[in-house]
Amino acid sequence: MDLAIDIGNSFHKAALFSEEGDMVYYKCFKNITINNVMEFFDFFKIERSIFSSVGKEYDEIKKYLQSKTHYFSFSYNSKLPISLEYDNPQTLGLDRIANAVAAFSNFPGYNIVSIQAGSCLVFDFITKEGKYLGGSISPGIEMRFKALHEFTNRLPLLSKKEINYFIGHSTQQSIKSGVINGVIYEINGFISNYKTNYSDLKIVISGGDSDYLQNSIKNTIFVGSSFILCGLHKILKFNVENN
Amino acid sequence: MDLAIDIGNSFHKAALFSEEGDMVYYKCFKNITINNVMEFFDFFKIERSIFSSVGKEYDEIKKYLQSKTHYFSFSYNSKLPISLEYDNPQTLGLDRIANAVAAFSNFPGYNIVSIQAGSCLVFDFITKEGKYLGGSISPGIEMRFKALHEFTNRLPLLSKKEINYFIGHSTQQSIKSGVINGVIYEINGFISNYKTNYSDLKIVISGGDSDYLQNSIKNTIFVGSSFILCGLHKILKFNVENN
Repeated sequence: MDLAIDIGNSFHKAALFSEEGDMVYYKCFKNITINNVMEFFDFFKIERSIFSSVGKEYDEIKKYLQSKTHYFSFSYNSKLPISLEYDNPQTLGLDRIANAVAAFSNFPGYNIVSIQAGSCLVFDFITKEGKYLGGSISPGIEMRFKALHEFTNRLPLLSKKEINYFIGHSTQQSIKSGVINGVIYEINGFISNYKTNYSDLKIVISGGDSDYLQNSIKNTIFVGSSFILCGLHKILKFNVENN
Repeated sequence: MDLAIDIGNSFHKAALFSEEGDMVYYKCFKNITINNVMEFFDFFKIERSIFSSVGKEYDEIKKYLQSKTHYFSFSYNSKLPISLEYDNPQTLGLDRIANAVAAFSNFPGYNIVSIQAGSCLVFDFITKEGKYLGGSISPGIEMRFKALHEFTNRLPLLSKKEINYFIGHSTQQSIKSGVINGVIYEINGFISNYKTNYSDLKIVISGGDSDYLQNSIKNTIFVGSSFILCGLHKILKFNVENN
């Protein structure tokens, strides 16, 4: 079996895959520890592994995986089933690369717009030929609430909530409308621009706020929080089996 | 003659009006001082004055105006030519009230969407009957750049620049696309929603980023940076002449 671990900004995720690529186990942690990883080995026969982190390094977990499995060291230099047509690929997060690989692998024959609605709102575009072209980055929902509070000294700190108005009749409602409707209009504006410029499109959305946005963004495919792990497993297979 | 002073977040503005409401002099300061104000009195015969500040109080200037003119003390309790249909009018900035009054006074017979594109992106809606209904507040362009830099620890601090792409091929381009196109899509999304819900609309835009956004937002009227001063003068006249 293959183990993939993804250390994100807010959550840590791990999944086990069969060699064919079927996910057989998935778990989300607030903060993964070496003990959590060792437990996988109590229950599963793990032969290969891959690890990606957006932040600090987790050397203990990496060393353990290296000692127990065929460990694939993933970096922006790794061979990929897609080509990175990006000016500075070393500044691309490994999670963004894995997400692009998952999008390309799961929707062959389509140009794919991937939307990650998390701490940042990240769009990525991958052509049907497997070229990753880049995209856009703007503040996510919580970050906008935080910015209004911290950078003005007079607006309250709010958090996301379903709303059904666009004219706010109080300061709190005005902020909620600006942030939540603003993000929805922004997503729909980008989607509309991609549709104008490309055909054969699939639009996929993931990230912590994607459930919340689901009712407001039409014609998108909601991929689960394990999407990046699927991409990591594709990268592991692509490198290990092609060597 | 009448003097109106508006202390905003980034700039301080002053204008002189004839009693009929014609602006005869306008000046913008980075930081207005008592000497700047005294100079007006060297050149103009000033009878009435009004003052609005979003931040600190400037007591010296206020006292000087009180001693030299019929000074109108503007607060959220002041009588207005519009009604504030807002849950907590005391939390509305005086500049936002003055802006709404300017919009109502300058475009009689229309429902008005006012967009202020400054440190925040503020929408306000005033009906043709003179009801201020509220609106929305979200981070402005510079605030989005700052939030991405300060709240992620890995993205660079950028500033606004004309762009002609929506897919960024580098991290810098991705951020610029997300922030600048995002704001444009957000503004167009709000405008479209107002248009769906109201007829007889005029859409006015002001604020430090309005020049910059002019080419991207269609069918809006760009009102100058003195718009709030015009509103302040209307409020001065409305109170002094109705007493």
